[in-house]
Amino acid sequence: MAPDLAAFDALCDERFDRWVDELREFCAIPSETDQFPDLERAAGWVEGRLRAAGAEVTVLREEGVPPLVVGELGTGPRTLIAVQHYDVQPAAPLDLWDTKPYDPSLRDGRLYARGVCDDKGELLHRIQAVEALRDAMGELPCRVRFVVEGEEESDSAHLARLLAQRPGFFEGDGALIEGGGVDEKGRPQLVCGVRGMVYAELSVRTLGFDAHSGGAQLLPNAAWRLIEVLATLRAPDGTVTIDGFLDDLASPTQEQLDHLRTLPFEEEEIKRIYEIREFVGGLTGRAAQIADTFRPTCNISGISSGWTDAGVKTITPAEAFAKVDMRLIPHQDPARIAEQLRAHLDRRGFQDVAMTVFRGEHPYWTPIGDPMVDAAERAHVGIFEERPLRWFSAGGTAPMHQVCAPHSLPMVTLGAGDPEVRAHAPNESYSLDLMRRAIRVTGRFLQEFAAIEA
Amino acid sequence: MAPDLAAFDALCDERFDRWVDELREFCAIPSETDQFPDLERAAGWVEGRLRAAGAEVTVLREEGVPPLVVGELGTGPRTLIAVQHYDVQPAAPLDLWDTKPYDPSLRDGRLYARGVCDDKGELLHRIQAVEALRDAMGELPCRVRFVVEGEEESDSAHLARLLAQRPGFFEGDGALIEGGGVDEKGRPQLVCGVRGMVYAELSVRTLGFDAHSGGAQLLPNAAWRLIEVLATLRAPDGTVTIDGFLDDLASPTQEQLDHLRTLPFEEEEIKRIYEIREFVGGLTGRAAQIADTFRPTCNISGISSGWTDAGVKTITPAEAFAKVDMRLIPHQDPARIAEQLRAHLDRRGFQDVAMTVFRGEHPYWTPIGDPMVDAAERAHVGIFEERPLRWFSAGGTAPMHQVCAPHSLPMVTLGAGDPEVRAHAPNESYSLDLMRRAIRVTGRFLQEFAAIEA
Repeated sequence: MAPDLAAFDALCDERFDRWVDELREFCAIPSETDQFPDLERAAGWVEGRLRAAGAEVTVLREEGVPPLVVGELGTGPRTLIAVQHYDVQPAAPLDLWDTKPYDPSLRDGRLYARGVCDDKGELLHRIQAVEALRDAMGELPCRVRFVVEGEEESDSAHLARLLAQRPGFFEGDGALIEGGGVDEKGRPQLVCGVRGMVYAELSVRTLGFDAHSGGAQLLPNAAWRLIEVLATLRAPDGTVTIDGFLDDLASPTQEQLDHLRTLPFEEEEIKRIYEIREFVGGLTGRAAQIADTFRPTCNISGISSGWTDAGVKTITPAEAFAKVDMRLIPHQDPARIAEQLRAHLDRRGFQDVAMTVFRGEHPYWTPIGDPMVDAAERAHVGIFEERPLRWFSAGGTAPMHQVCAPHSLPMVTLGAGDPEVRAHAPNESYSLDLMRRAIRVTGRFLQEFAAIEA
Repeated sequence: MAPDLAAFDALCDERFDRWVDELREFCAIPSETDQFPDLERAAGWVEGRLRAAGAEVTVLREEGVPPLVVGELGTGPRTLIAVQHYDVQPAAPLDLWDTKPYDPSLRDGRLYARGVCDDKGELLHRIQAVEALRDAMGELPCRVRFVVEGEEESDSAHLARLLAQRPGFFEGDGALIEGGGVDEKGRPQLVCGVRGMVYAELSVRTLGFDAHSGGAQLLPNAAWRLIEVLATLRAPDGTVTIDGFLDDLASPTQEQLDHLRTLPFEEEEIKRIYEIREFVGGLTGRAAQIADTFRPTCNISGISSGWTDAGVKTITPAEAFAKVDMRLIPHQDPARIAEQLRAHLDRRGFQDVAMTVFRGEHPYWTPIGDPMVDAAERAHVGIFEERPLRWFSAGGTAPMHQVCAPHSLPMVTLGAGDPEVRAHAPNESYSLDLMRRAIRVTGRFLQEFAAIEA
């Protein structure tokens, strides 16, 4: 091992307990989507932490938008952009948490808190890794630019516009994206893409007010109306049936399908973790694996109408709404999908259904053979026993198209997640062992990344 | 006018303001379904009011069940049973009320409060009418038995069992039921039947916990699963498609269809009140009128799954539920319908869907030519200008089968409702003018009822 890496590893050991305390402090801020004072506090916390690490920090602001915190460290010809966020998914339903979501709790080597994995833990451990490498080496081998936004969980509606205030912020040679970590068997994963998304709320009003259900033979029920609408969007086997939705979907290439064969698909383990008997559409084996990577989705995140408390109430509801998120695969375009959805509704006579689209994200996939992915693989040597696996895409979404597309940057994950993290769900957690290892990998990656020949 | 009726009318005028004050007091008790201390208070209020009117009162109790209050006044060979309730539908959503639901408010000749129409106003004005008639005449022309329960809004699950403690309570010669009043044009209505009901909660769990929606290509979504289920229960035109649901439905007779032609159907007025453009299935005119009377329903009173608060959250929900009420027409049997629904689900592979049935009610329709209905018509002379209309059934449900079926009693409404009452909805109200007239009609009806020859 190079002497600077030995020094780096020693610093990591020395600082680790303090780093965990920092993470607890960061996670105690309930910076949920749209919760402005808390989003501001979290942005301030990130700004302070980056400054403490010696970064040059710029905070970009726009009225009504969580601030975008950009921090830069190091010098050199190559620049790595780390794209992170300080906002978190709402913690509700609170009664399903074993401990309070904003009172981080350490149990069996895992820290439990909303956002501890997605994305506060990962953001913080990257800052910690960069700082420790700089301290160990005297200087960083490359430039590192943290781009830390506060509306990733609501789809990064203003990220591109905020970044456009400083076009230079898009310039670089590669990007680290959120997510990644190890799979069900503890094998490190290099994820090279993200799905796109359209998030839409569909709502309908059929009556001036909730009516006694004794009139349901004639009075239109908003819940039934919405169910009629939703039933046209997706077949029970999971196929999205919105007119035109699949038009721009790239079929997997033979090369992609061949690579997919080399990747594990831990069917029984996934079913065990989620306590399910069957995947959507009853898919198994190879078909399920292909769908897992290449099938776009239309998911209901929430639906509500009428009386939803305990007990009996007999009304014909006047209003109903559903929140629908569609995860996109290259080359689906979120704006086009939104138009197609509206046209799909109108064509079927659902003009009475209002549709509010929260701005979407494009999918963005880097070829899995990119030299930056090779560099990421080398960074794992000595930290994990198994060779990392290269994945085409995460199931989730991040604004990588906004950040990477202008200069066609490659991107990859280097994460500390595992299948137990429960991102977006109650009892979100982060493995401290994986955090410790991910910090070491990140330090090594900076060296490998700096050495890539242009 | 007979001298005793003149004296009765004078007493009604003299007491009216006090009667309205009593109604305000009664409506201030938030005796919502399952709210036990308040249900007990309301039962006590009714007991006290009946005793004050001179009734002999029996309170029937069972552990965990709102008390059944039975009060009897008068003597004579004929007995009229007035079936009422002191429980009310939940007032939520509270933000849609212009004034507080349990702080009764008088505006433009209407009293606004939860339960003011359904059924506290009607219960109270009947007691007031009976008391005033007795005071005016010296004695009542017949026996009147008030049967006042506290779980009508949750389907009278224990009424038959409580009444069975005193089998004599079922004996009589006819029953006044809740509901009725005037239609859109102010014409009095004599409603001779009630619909039955099955109220079921359908719920499904597809995952151990809410998952990040980035896994929706394989992880089954409870909302989608429930929508698949619900979409099999009813066609968009309103036809209930539960296997066997229509098997026991009696087709309307030619005589019924002929009578229906004599009844008004104020299509535009109904649409105006409910602010709707189209009835279910696009029905209009005669077809809509027939459906309004003879079509059973499958109504969603409420549905919920996943994230239903404001803003964006991207999860695949683990659980979903819907509350479904089915209103039944002779000779649909609620127990059989519940069995058919379960079999319908199982036949389609929905064994994972749990079904909780709250006990149902049978429909109960008295022939519209019954002598008691004739008596009710005569009672309106002089109080309303127009002749009352005879309706086969209310859209709503009441436990009349439990009360009337053992001795095949005829039943009819004499109400003070109108299309603006908003029963079960926010801003429920009661017209004081109609209350004043309904009290006079009720006094006259007692005399007419007493004179019917067996």
